[in-house]
Amino acid sequence: MRTVTKDNITDVFMSYMSGDTNPRMREVMGSLVKHLHDFARETNLTHEEWRTGIAFLEGCAAIESEDRHEFVLASDVLGLSSLVDMLHSSEDATSSSVLGPFHVSGAPALAFGGDMKRHFGGPVLLAEGTIKDTDGNPIAGAELDIWQTAPNGLYASQDEEQDTFSFHGLMTVGEDGKYAFTTVKPVEYTVPSDGPVGDILRACGRHPWRPSHLHFIVKAPGYRSLVTEVFPKDDPYLDHDTVFGVRGDLVMEYIEREASEFPDGLELSGQVSDPFLSVKFDIILAPE
Amino acid sequence: MRTVTKDNITDVFMSYMSGDTNPRMREVMGSLVKHLHDFARETNLTHEEWRTGIAFLEGCAAIESEDRHEFVLASDVLGLSSLVDMLHSSEDATSSSVLGPFHVSGAPALAFGGDMKRHFGGPVLLAEGTIKDTDGNPIAGAELDIWQTAPNGLYASQDEEQDTFSFHGLMTVGEDGKYAFTTVKPVEYTVPSDGPVGDILRACGRHPWRPSHLHFIVKAPGYRSLVTEVFPKDDPYLDHDTVFGVRGDLVMEYIEREASEFPDGLELSGQVSDPFLSVKFDIILAPE
Repeated sequence: MRTVTKDNITDVFMSYMSGDTNPRMREVMGSLVKHLHDFARETNLTHEEWRTGIAFLEGCAAIESEDRHEFVLASDVLGLSSLVDMLHSSEDATSSSVLGPFHVSGAPALAFGGDMKRHFGGPVLLAEGTIKDTDGNPIAGAELDIWQTAPNGLYASQDEEQDTFSFHGLMTVGEDGKYAFTTVKPVEYTVPSDGPVGDILRACGRHPWRPSHLHFIVKAPGYRSLVTEVFPKDDPYLDHDTVFGVRGDLVMEYIEREASEFPDGLELSGQVSDPFLSVKFDIILAPE
Repeated sequence: MRTVTKDNITDVFMSYMSGDTNPRMREVMGSLVKHLHDFARETNLTHEEWRTGIAFLEGCAAIESEDRHEFVLASDVLGLSSLVDMLHSSEDATSSSVLGPFHVSGAPALAFGGDMKRHFGGPVLLAEGTIKDTDGNPIAGAELDIWQTAPNGLYASQDEEQDTFSFHGLMTVGEDGKYAFTTVKPVEYTVPSDGPVGDILRACGRHPWRPSHLHFIVKAPGYRSLVTEVFPKDDPYLDHDTVFGVRGDLVMEYIEREASEFPDGLELSGQVSDPFLSVKFDIILAPE
């Protein structure tokens, strides 16, 4: 197009794509560019603002590393990560929720009733539940990948004081679909706010806090894999999670119980605390 | 919001911004996020596609450097850079066109009639014109920052064989507003396509070519600065510049003329070629 204008540039972009472009590529790129152009037209985006945007991306690039995923964090605080989760959640199954940037693959096996708390202080939290299909039947052999922060609010990958797989475990459930493990109560924490994403949060008057949660990835043959989290009902940040991860069905009560009520047959590194905390969280998987 | 849904997440995002957020920040971020969310909803963006997008940004980050501006290039080939240019072009003035990633600041002064061709081969190109206001009056003292590729299609910043300021010059016009300099005819060239932006071009069946051009930044006190380019009328890529830079008023004829017609008083390193090429390009600046 010899004369590109602000009104025809989106059509010119589409006309540049060759006829044999993969149809899904055409659809996704076409929508992306239409929205990018509409954004610029609607805001009458200035050169200075464009440079600010480029500087933001370059600033993310400058700190991007194996341990710091600033682009993922940007997607998280803008709500894109949660939106993609919700678009692909099944209505009959447990809601999915953000994976986040702190999961470490290859965690050691954790037996039924196993302990993730080890030497860390504070009351014991007993987390248990059943992995079920949408008819309520247990899913034998489902695999849970579990991770959370230590009591200091840091994940193993953020914290030199912790082992690689501290507060990470991989549990395979038996015929009854049940899981149970002991750990500490997770704490609310802030997403990293010392980079360009933190600048955005500050410019918008937003805090960097997430409510406390346990993370799960649940997999079973024949079912859709689920990435999810469970939140305690009394967390102060439930209503304004900075990464938009809270769903009503993921909020559970943490009940204080007497040590004498602690079930038999569970592995624990130390004494059961009195009281201990207990949370039940059943997880429903949708068929593939 | 305890229950964020795919339908309310954009409103929840807006509700997170504090009341004292800068109004323009609210407008730009609000529009950006609305379009980002609409893009995901309209395409039903999958987790795998989201990961592809993150990997694209991380791939750009991995090669970003002082000499390689992959995020700017992405903006260029998606048409965003040109759109921002057009949004802020003045209708009565010469069209603006992409700055591109290859401009080097601080070029040496080039006198009226000065030579940028030096020892490079091929026919001489004489470029001349007048810097005018929107009433057609010359703008005395306007400053032109001029740059272009060498005959091999590479800018100085891309080419170890060239000096830092090869094919870069800074000319200040006199009372008559006229500029003139000799150089080589620029050639069409490809934008860097060995990175993630090249992957996008290939996935869309697009070529990486730009039509040949001379770059100008024109500044004068009391006038809006202009970033622009001039293209030759016979270039094969005028109708599909991969960065959308061509505007009708920037396309000029390169005329072949006999050496005897070469004007007196112009500095040249060598002989005038016979024939030589001549292009006239007047540049109109809008008031500030």
